[in-house]
Amino acid sequence: MSTPTIDVTPMDRTAIRVRVEAALYEFLGRKAESAAAAGLPADVVDAVRSFLFAGGKRIRPLFCVLGWYAGGGAELPDSVVRVAAAVELFHAAVLIHDDIIDDSDTRRDQPTVHRAVADRKRTVHDRSAAARFGTHAALLIGDFGLVWSQELLHTAGLTAAQNAAATPILDAMRTEVNYGQYLDLLTTGRPTRDLDQALEIIRYKTAAYTVQRPLQLGAALAGASPEVLAALSGYGVPLGEAFQLQDDLLGVFGDPTRTGKSTLDDLREGKHTVLLALALRDATPEHRAQLDALIGNPRLDARGAARCREILTATARPEVERMIRDRWLQVQRTLARAPFPPDAVAGLRSIADAVIARTS
Amino acid sequence: MSTPTIDVTPMDRTAIRVRVEAALYEFLGRKAESAAAAGLPADVVDAVRSFLFAGGKRIRPLFCVLGWYAGGGAELPDSVVRVAAAVELFHAAVLIHDDIIDDSDTRRDQPTVHRAVADRKRTVHDRSAAARFGTHAALLIGDFGLVWSQELLHTAGLTAAQNAAATPILDAMRTEVNYGQYLDLLTTGRPTRDLDQALEIIRYKTAAYTVQRPLQLGAALAGASPEVLAALSGYGVPLGEAFQLQDDLLGVFGDPTRTGKSTLDDLREGKHTVLLALALRDATPEHRAQLDALIGNPRLDARGAARCREILTATARPEVERMIRDRWLQVQRTLARAPFPPDAVAGLRSIADAVIARTS
Repeated sequence: MSTPTIDVTPMDRTAIRVRVEAALYEFLGRKAESAAAAGLPADVVDAVRSFLFAGGKRIRPLFCVLGWYAGGGAELPDSVVRVAAAVELFHAAVLIHDDIIDDSDTRRDQPTVHRAVADRKRTVHDRSAAARFGTHAALLIGDFGLVWSQELLHTAGLTAAQNAAATPILDAMRTEVNYGQYLDLLTTGRPTRDLDQALEIIRYKTAAYTVQRPLQLGAALAGASPEVLAALSGYGVPLGEAFQLQDDLLGVFGDPTRTGKSTLDDLREGKHTVLLALALRDATPEHRAQLDALIGNPRLDARGAARCREILTATARPEVERMIRDRWLQVQRTLARAPFPPDAVAGLRSIADAVIARTS
Repeated sequence: MSTPTIDVTPMDRTAIRVRVEAALYEFLGRKAESAAAAGLPADVVDAVRSFLFAGGKRIRPLFCVLGWYAGGGAELPDSVVRVAAAVELFHAAVLIHDDIIDDSDTRRDQPTVHRAVADRKRTVHDRSAAARFGTHAALLIGDFGLVWSQELLHTAGLTAAQNAAATPILDAMRTEVNYGQYLDLLTTGRPTRDLDQALEIIRYKTAAYTVQRPLQLGAALAGASPEVLAALSGYGVPLGEAFQLQDDLLGVFGDPTRTGKSTLDDLREGKHTVLLALALRDATPEHRAQLDALIGNPRLDARGAARCREILTATARPEVERMIRDRWLQVQRTLARAPFPPDAVAGLRSIADAVIARTS
């Protein structure tokens, strides 16, 4: 596929998204062709492609591209778009594995990969054998995503200097998100009043992985100075924390028709979020007893969830909203004195506003 | 850890092994230090390290190093040892995920990672919750292995030219083994008389992944010519096929005290091996009916397995042994005219003999 080059500015999020998606589509098209040529089953590429194109905010590639501009990069080259696309492909793999771990049925309004494969197998297997097959196929499909995101990076057309600057950031990012997932696994089902631990999970799972590292990656490709990389941390870490705090609120109070996620899942799983840690810390003994009984119960119903929401609204929700505002102010302060070109500042300010105001 | 440099020759498999293991140990030691410094749990590094050092033949790093010599490389540099170690770390990740998919209890005479984690959780969870936790933790621990094998490569100290030569081979290798695993998953439990499909699985899972690609990787690091890379395929593909055919025999007829694997697992799972495909193709109707009833039965007992072995010995085993000999002869013919230095030929001949004669 020959993609017409689309000019991009830091403010033009749609153009950035279109270019990243074209790079993903082209790469997976080549994977489909080589599978067909080798007589290999098409379903692996199909599964990765359906998952990637069912939706997703493309926020990590966007930050990667904004990092490129913040680092002083000029007109956006295809090589940087491909690196941004590789980050999105890596993220798809993380989510496919995450959905196995969380036993989630839907993501992006579609059945999750393990569930979709299991559903197709119901014609030949009983329910539990089909579920097992779906889980194992999705495990491997996630592994393909990890491996192919590497290949997309390797074939992005970076210079040796860009490669050398980018790989330490990518290595850090991948280790951080894995530790975030691992901490999440250790604590899920046992939410506690340990606020520090909930914040640590946010830092690994989101602040570094979703915002700070993609920004630094793009900036490193542009040859950014250590000062620029540090300023991107000063912007990215609070914004990433705000993003996740907002995500936790949306997971409980959001509109499922907008978020594509049930508002029961986080409560049923007993995710150790800042919201729950604060609620358990500040609730009255009576409320705490109710939360303990309701949260982490896999059969929690709409009525129980409504009761949780009442208690959370009375206790932790205002504090979480305050934490989000604090972080938004930190972001503004960093941007006011950051050594980035003006159009990069405008782009970063605009995405920060969108993150804080988002409803999905 | 400062490791004294150990001089290596292509014939000295123990010295190669010691250097690769020292590189792995040092890398994981650094991972343990950074986890401790960040207040992260030690159990991820511990799990990867215990798994890696419980055993393993280190055959892929060995082929990587032999490829270096075959490609004309002189004294073995630490950078090449680290690449070989990265291949072994990648393999550990593949095995950790493979053990989840196969629901294996033991590997290398130890509990598998998911089982070991589940066993430790039995004190706080019921059996099924502990098993689920073990599976999910092992999924993430495998992901850490994949990510860290990349980091070990990135920090191996390769030149830009070596990087450019090595990455296409590594990308191919990783995709091939994933497809091998995927084909295995699709066919397990439904062994058929389809010999071509069984051979295709072998080529992806073993011939390319275990032998051909590691050899070509090492050779590419030495700057080998296309002729050398082609000759390494002529050696590696038949040897890899022979290795896997031997593995299939050992999986059914081997000595568990030597292989560390039960001789019931392959039969219970109904792995679609060449051995079974040939047996189903050539058996009498009566024998075929017995195999159909016994193979793929998760409750197959020692007596049923003994009956399978009798039928396989009467039908497919001699043919598999003949296929192994044929491939061994191809290996010899390639070596007789290969453009490798004489000491590399000697090393490759010696490992080929060991592979064919192996009992574990």
